[in-house]
Amino acid sequence: MKMLSYGEVNLRFTPPEYQLLEQTNQLTYQITGTGVNLLANLKNFGLETTLLTTLPNNSIGKVARATLRKYGINDQFIRLNGNHMGSYFVEMGYGLRPTVVTYQNRLASAFCQANPASYPIEEAVATSDFVHICGISLLLTEQTRETALKIAATAKKYNKKLYFDFNYRPSLNTQHTKEFIKEQYEKILYSADTVFGGIRDLTELLDIKAPELASELEQLKAVTEIFKEEYHIDTFVGTMRSFEEGKHYLAGFMARGEFQVSSRQSVAILDRIGAGDAYAAGIIFGQTENWGEEKTLEFAVHNAVLAHAIPGDVPHTTVSEVEALMSNKQQSLIR
Amino acid sequence: MKMLSYGEVNLRFTPPEYQLLEQTNQLTYQITGTGVNLLANLKNFGLETTLLTTLPNNSIGKVARATLRKYGINDQFIRLNGNHMGSYFVEMGYGLRPTVVTYQNRLASAFCQANPASYPIEEAVATSDFVHICGISLLLTEQTRETALKIAATAKKYNKKLYFDFNYRPSLNTQHTKEFIKEQYEKILYSADTVFGGIRDLTELLDIKAPELASELEQLKAVTEIFKEEYHIDTFVGTMRSFEEGKHYLAGFMARGEFQVSSRQSVAILDRIGAGDAYAAGIIFGQTENWGEEKTLEFAVHNAVLAHAIPGDVPHTTVSEVEALMSNKQQSLIR
Amino acid sequence: MKMLSYGEVNLRFTPPEYQLLEQTNQLTYQITGTGVNLLANLKNFGLETTLLTTLPNNSIGKVARATLRKYGINDQFIRLNGNHMGSYFVEMGYGLRPTVVTYQNRLASAFCQANPASYPIEEAVATSDFVHICGISLLLTEQTRETALKIAATAKKYNKKLYFDFNYRPSLNTQHTKEFIKEQYEKILYSADTVFGGIRDLTELLDIKAPELASELEQLKAVTEIFKEEYHIDTFVGTMRSFEEGKHYLAGFMARGEFQVSSRQSVAILDRIGAGDAYAAGIIFGQTENWGEEKTLEFAVHNAVLAHAIPGDVPHTTVSEVEALMSNKQQSLIR
Amino acid sequence: MKMLSYGEVNLRFTPPEYQLLEQTNQLTYQITGTGVNLLANLKNFGLETTLLTTLPNNSIGKVARATLRKYGINDQFIRLNGNHMGSYFVEMGYGLRPTVVTYQNRLASAFCQANPASYPIEEAVATSDFVHICGISLLLTEQTRETALKIAATAKKYNKKLYFDFNYRPSLNTQHTKEFIKEQYEKILYSADTVFGGIRDLTELLDIKAPELASELEQLKAVTEIFKEEYHIDTFVGTMRSFEEGKHYLAGFMARGEFQVSSRQSVAILDRIGAGDAYAAGIIFGQTENWGEEKTLEFAVHNAVLAHAIPGDVPHTTVSEVEALMSNKQQSLIR
Amino acid sequence: MKMLSYGEVNLRFTPPEYQLLEQTNQLTYQITGTGVNLLANLKNFGLETTLLTTLPNNSIGKVARATLRKYGINDQFIRLNGNHMGSYFVEMGYGLRPTVVTYQNRLASAFCQANPASYPIEEAVATSDFVHICGISLLLTEQTRETALKIAATAKKYNKKLYFDFNYRPSLNTQHTKEFIKEQYEKILYSADTVFGGIRDLTELLDIKAPELASELEQLKAVTEIFKEEYHIDTFVGTMRSFEEGKHYLAGFMARGEFQVSSRQSVAILDRIGAGDAYAAGIIFGQTENWGEEKTLEFAVHNAVLAHAIPGDVPHTTVSEVEALMSNKQQSLIR
Amino acid sequence: MKMLSYGEVNLRFTPPEYQLLEQTNQLTYQITGTGVNLLANLKNFGLETTLLTTLPNNSIGKVARATLRKYGINDQFIRLNGNHMGSYFVEMGYGLRPTVVTYQNRLASAFCQANPASYPIEEAVATSDFVHICGISLLLTEQTRETALKIAATAKKYNKKLYFDFNYRPSLNTQHTKEFIKEQYEKILYSADTVFGGIRDLTELLDIKAPELASELEQLKAVTEIFKEEYHIDTFVGTMRSFEEGKHYLAGFMARGEFQVSSRQSVAILDRIGAGDAYAAGIIFGQTENWGEEKTLEFAVHNAVLAHAIPGDVPHTTVSEVEALMSNKQQSLIR
Repeated sequence: MKMLSYGEVNLRFTPPEYQLLEQTNQLTYQITGTGVNLLANLKNFGLETTLLTTLPNNSIGKVARATLRKYGINDQFIRLNGNHMGSYFVEMGYGLRPTVVTYQNRLASAFCQANPASYPIEEAVATSDFVHICGISLLLTEQTRETALKIAATAKKYNKKLYFDFNYRPSLNTQHTKEFIKEQYEKILYSADTVFGGIRDLTELLDIKAPELASELEQLKAVTEIFKEEYHIDTFVGTMRSFEEGKHYLAGFMARGEFQVSSRQSVAILDRIGAGDAYAAGIIFGQTENWGEEKTLEFAVHNAVLAHAIPGDVPHTTVSEVEALMSNKQQSLIR
Repeated sequence: MKMLSYGEVNLRFTPPEYQLLEQTNQLTYQITGTGVNLLANLKNFGLETTLLTTLPNNSIGKVARATLRKYGINDQFIRLNGNHMGSYFVEMGYGLRPTVVTYQNRLASAFCQANPASYPIEEAVATSDFVHICGISLLLTEQTRETALKIAATAKKYNKKLYFDFNYRPSLNTQHTKEFIKEQYEKILYSADTVFGGIRDLTELLDIKAPELASELEQLKAVTEIFKEEYHIDTFVGTMRSFEEGKHYLAGFMARGEFQVSSRQSVAILDRIGAGDAYAAGIIFGQTENWGEEKTLEFAVHNAVLAHAIPGDVPHTTVSEVEALMSNKQQSLIR
Repeated sequence: MKMLSYGEVNLRFTPPEYQLLEQTNQLTYQITGTGVNLLANLKNFGLETTLLTTLPNNSIGKVARATLRKYGINDQFIRLNGNHMGSYFVEMGYGLRPTVVTYQNRLASAFCQANPASYPIEEAVATSDFVHICGISLLLTEQTRETALKIAATAKKYNKKLYFDFNYRPSLNTQHTKEFIKEQYEKILYSADTVFGGIRDLTELLDIKAPELASELEQLKAVTEIFKEEYHIDTFVGTMRSFEEGKHYLAGFMARGEFQVSSRQSVAILDRIGAGDAYAAGIIFGQTENWGEEKTLEFAVHNAVLAHAIPGDVPHTTVSEVEALMSNKQQSLIR
Repeated sequence: MKMLSYGEVNLRFTPPEYQLLEQTNQLTYQITGTGVNLLANLKNFGLETTLLTTLPNNSIGKVARATLRKYGINDQFIRLNGNHMGSYFVEMGYGLRPTVVTYQNRLASAFCQANPASYPIEEAVATSDFVHICGISLLLTEQTRETALKIAATAKKYNKKLYFDFNYRPSLNTQHTKEFIKEQYEKILYSADTVFGGIRDLTELLDIKAPELASELEQLKAVTEIFKEEYHIDTFVGTMRSFEEGKHYLAGFMARGEFQVSSRQSVAILDRIGAGDAYAAGIIFGQTENWGEEKTLEFAVHNAVLAHAIPGDVPHTTVSEVEALMSNKQQSLIR
Repeated sequence: MKMLSYGEVNLRFTPPEYQLLEQTNQLTYQITGTGVNLLANLKNFGLETTLLTTLPNNSIGKVARATLRKYGINDQFIRLNGNHMGSYFVEMGYGLRPTVVTYQNRLASAFCQANPASYPIEEAVATSDFVHICGISLLLTEQTRETALKIAATAKKYNKKLYFDFNYRPSLNTQHTKEFIKEQYEKILYSADTVFGGIRDLTELLDIKAPELASELEQLKAVTEIFKEEYHIDTFVGTMRSFEEGKHYLAGFMARGEFQVSSRQSVAILDRIGAGDAYAAGIIFGQTENWGEEKTLEFAVHNAVLAHAIPGDVPHTTVSEVEALMSNKQQSLIR
Repeated sequence: MKMLSYGEVNLRFTPPEYQLLEQTNQLTYQITGTGVNLLANLKNFGLETTLLTTLPNNSIGKVARATLRKYGINDQFIRLNGNHMGSYFVEMGYGLRPTVVTYQNRLASAFCQANPASYPIEEAVATSDFVHICGISLLLTEQTRETALKIAATAKKYNKKLYFDFNYRPSLNTQHTKEFIKEQYEKILYSADTVFGGIRDLTELLDIKAPELASELEQLKAVTEIFKEEYHIDTFVGTMRSFEEGKHYLAGFMARGEFQVSSRQSVAILDRIGAGDAYAAGIIFGQTENWGEEKTLEFAVHNAVLAHAIPGDVPHTTVSEVEALMSNKQQSLIR
């Protein structure tokens, strides 16, 4: 099974030991990105994974490419060009102090400047079994928008299953009207099979009205139903976070046939970023394994629980580690 | 608004990753001190801040002065002289293992050896709006005692609001009788407007008797009333810590008109030191903003909650971060 | 009071800040081992301690020997020979993610290749007050097996109290039948006074049948009674771990006269490894102090609680630290 | 004496211990820039220094501003806006392996996007004694070009001495003809008093013809004479590097009245970057002290020698350190 | 062009900043080995590279495999089995203090325990253009000896060019007579095309007599001639080191047709290990490029010069970096 | 052979990678001191070593004592008392940039406050073969002066060979006249057998006149002769440093019978501090081995050469390492 993902690669800089940037001149850097996180995790689960992206043609781009290989991601469709990679700083939170992410400019990046013609899209899609696109590419530049749409169209043409992740962040869209962005999303949604997102993606971006007075969960169910019908979506999946008496909780939902909800798991947060990608990886893996929805949801949620406890964005979990956690035989030490 | 503080600057050495001193030969150092912590925090809140102190005239003193500038503290009244700065080692606790502080000699420090004549007290006080003195200076040397008293007198003369922090630590007073020390404190208390302290400062140092049989809170209220009347104190402020079922809690009290108590907040402790200074900074800021006592107390307590979750002594919080926490919209991740 | 222990010294490699091995090329190393942990802790408690072991005759062995001296362990019976020391990697867990230990080959180590004739066993035992043997030496090589048995016999001959720790790990026994191993254990058990272990050691290795239908604790009591009688054991001691609603708990038991159980303490886990050795050190110290069983058990459990909160295997606790925790005057900061 | 500089602030990332980027995930970051290096060094020499620049309005910009204060640079004319700061990676060379610098995008930076109207140029220039402009601003964006020219014009208007540094790097000019760039440089040159540069700036950018057949030094003298006359330059200054038998050498030249050359000094290179800025700082300081040209040149060259031996871009030298080196009383240890 | 190498992968541990093991508890680890170094370098030069080896089937083996992918080495013929990887500690020298390497046991490693039947030798050889074998495998275990010989025979059978590196270290041969070892070497030599080695390999292992009274170089020439004739070797290559007045020098020789010697280059040593592998990589690359012997030798020697200046064993050089050094346009800084 | 030394233990703080204090908040600390360095080195050479000192009775003192044990120094005469240990910061030099040492207050240290009655001097001296006193103790406090003199007297009484090291630093003597200090030195000199020092100790402190017009070496010889006669000194030893064309050189001299000078060795300086102690350790070891003066001098100088290339003060050299360097078989790599 071979998963292709189109997505940006970023540099993440993290000060050590929960320090703020102003407290230290030391950083650890990591090669990340939604596509990177997802593929690295799926590779650990046993899939073949390929990233379609552009990296700068300098030592930073070469380090990134080498690191992707280290993650087990195939580098045959990675192109080196330009001289910039988007980067962000992560000041790790603790207790009630939140983790703070500060982005540097990413629009000038090699990825954001690469147009569809620069990629062997036809070949990349044709030789894969599934395709994954992150919605952020619809928000960035004309080039990434066009590339994403062309990949979606090609997936349709070759009849490959298309995974699409909303990842809608209004703040990233600074040049276009919301209507324009909505239109782009709609183009992809009509090609997508499984979509990752939350209630706000449906209500705020797609303007689906949530019925009044219902509980949050009931609202989610209702708008999901409308969404799936209107855009011919096979499966809509997402997470639900809650915070009670100083503890964070996570659950997942999946609307394929019936709307299903996973168990709610308590999460100890070491590194908050990348947990959503771990959840997505869990869902995709469950589907490739043809597990039922219940097992798939549980696997995805437990994978996300582990991802919260791993430093950095990339969820370095394996199937057996997730299953050990699911089996409830909690061990604090494995020799 | 301009706050002047008279206080010692210290070197703090911390082994990494919760290690004990005997487990590593690596240390991080930080420039700290009650005045430093308070002023750095108030600068972040938008006040102008100035420290009146003496640093050694060598590379350590110069690093300290440069770091104070980095914190945004004005260095115009910092004098370089001598060759020693007090230092302490912090072995960070975890869970039920307490944080342990080990002091090296501080009496030989440039600060402790500097007499009042070496400071431009008149100018420093006259050009400020508020003055802050830490009670530790009454316990150290003849020189710091005299300097503190002269500053308090000058604040009175120029009609500047005086903040005084008890910080009474019997262990630091090794050469004088308790009576002598009490007398020094009393001299300052008669000039002070807002005083930071706790019940033990009033009962053990000032010999105010707590009524029997009352609850702890009732006792505090009672002795506070006596204290305020006897010493003509405008406002008495402090914190109350508790520990229940493995969790630490913090609340604040403020006796200005009526005796008021803040909400009790649970605290996750990353670094215990400096939280009291964060509380004081919150109180002072609330007063400069003319917030009511309730809002001031809540701001101060939530500021202290964040300070527990920041490594090092210095509370690098901003007004918007504290208000976000107060607004109860707890986020684990801010992008 | 002088404790002699026969045991292997290992190199432990730990990546920083909860990272997985694949996330970093940095490691901290530590000199550890059951005997090392136990003796370092007992030295902190005030006993004299001596380790009987073999280290490689190269810079690694010399660093190990120097570090043992740093821990306060007498190095007079440490022999340098060969060129290998067993090592393991520890990837530290967080929250529900377990700590994972990966061993490198240890059978080729200087310790595992050293036969009894290479040690001055007679002298080492005769000049000590107590002797401690870790059961792992029965599982490793012919050489360690013979050495352990000879030491046990010598302890008997000189009438020294013998502490024996089951530490039975079926995975380490790859060349012999379980029956063979059981036989070796039995030889030592007949000489042992105080034995450390758990119910599985008695049921799985020694084939003692646990009565059906009883609670876990009742089962433990029952098999302990049979075990003590059959092998003439004076005291059997061990720990009981539990995990409830996201929290880890620890309690201890001791069957000397009556079967006694300690209070159950909640544990915050920073570093899981070595906590069992801390418990054993607490028991041994309580016995040398002739404390009653209750105080001994409480001291041992609280010592283990602290050990969970100290990085690395070696429990660097002191009597006053443990007693402060027992006294329930929990402090988060000691100045 | 007060020096104003207009220049960009950059983030420099350096892997530890001469490692290549691909060998480690650890970095040290430093706040640098030609203006930063120059001003930090001049502050150490006793001047007052002010930077006119724009930093991003986020935690990176705030850390940069705080660090400039730490260097002793006045932050009153620093504006926070936008979200990007130019950055570069430095892989430190060793022996014959050169140091390699890799730039990330800087044109999108807050500095490059800030137009002249956003700065209080009038006030900044009027309150300074000297003004320094780095030629790189002529190569970057329309905004930086216009700002630089307006500052130069304002310096002329207020009759402030203008220092100008060619820093001509053809690679940075990607959108304009060389003729356009030359024109911009010429505009500033006509306002400049002291100019820093080398022979290639004069021949390649300004198209001054070097006479044939002369030695390199004679060529430099000849084109310098033409340059000074044509552009009415008071003083032209620069360095000459050479490499012989595995050793690097540095000398300086200064054409004010007569063309003068300093002694040639051997340099041990720890960190190559920033040495040119140290040379410039030495020249400026010598001029403010009204030293003769000979002493000024020697001071500048020796300052640059020390700067090669200090890690990072910023030359943290003091007058007494440079003079100690000049006095030839070489000490390997100062207590 | 595709190079296959059969060789062991090792863990290298290095204390930071020239410290001795006893001075620190911090280490950096690196994945190395003669084959690894060679292939990583050749990949950088543009060749495809594949390693035939066995790694332990645990997190250490998986990190090693991931790191090989990071180096650009194909992992398709890497097998995971067993639980041990050979390791060594490197205490870095400085000035006249030599670098010291301390090996831990390697005979128990997954590589040393893997027999020829466990490898797809036929397929690996058939799909490559060249094959490289390191002589150390003849000294380790029966399994590595047999595997090496079978690979050599297969290379012959498929008519692939065979590179063989003596790497004869008498200390590694502890179980067999020198005669036995010589016999094994001879078996391979008869299949080898290009052989890497030095005069001592020929005189001490192969018992070729060096003529008396000649200079060292003349002796080398003479024994090389005999060696080439006797074993039908196409090309014999190696290095010559010298040390004069505190400086280290390196030259290379190559006996294909005529005996040729490269220029002698001075080397600044940052990390001594891996320089020989860099030399070999340079020779192999020159041959695949069909450069003449002179250019090949110069390229190889300059590559080795750079490798001395790179931390760690692996020579991360590129063709353009080596050619820049050869072109004599030495730069200390590349932007 | 058992060497007793009386001397202060210090904390040394060093920023990493040649950084200045103002460039980093990271430090490495080391336990050092003239006596510590000397004894640690002699222990490595095979002698038994004991330090007579006082350390603070807190976690710093305990770490220091543990570290001394790690160095192999006997801790039986180390007393814990007080709360301060003298410390200094070392900013490591590079090339022509000198290493800079900044001391914090040491007069308040546990060592400086400990009087002779607090030490078991009689027992310590009686059970040793040699005694070593560092002259710094004559400059510090009344307590250290009296202790040093009492130890010297006791050494005389028990007829133990006394080593005395001038270490005269006028800057440390701030309370007494030079005459007073000279008197104290003279008291010890009359008891000393072997004295370490230089020409300035004899001319500046002891007022011995150097003959005019002679060469430096002739002057040294002349004053040495006078010194030895006047104070009945058996052996006077010291080093001579020189700096030529960018290189540092070291030689040693020894006046026992005839005045002898060692070979002059070039030194590559990694860490300048502690080299003098290494030289002294070499001399003492040569004498205990009864080597002739020539071999002793060469051993001591080569030991000092190695010590310059070891980070930190403590010279971790062994006899075989020094002899390998002396044998001129320079190796850059030892496997």
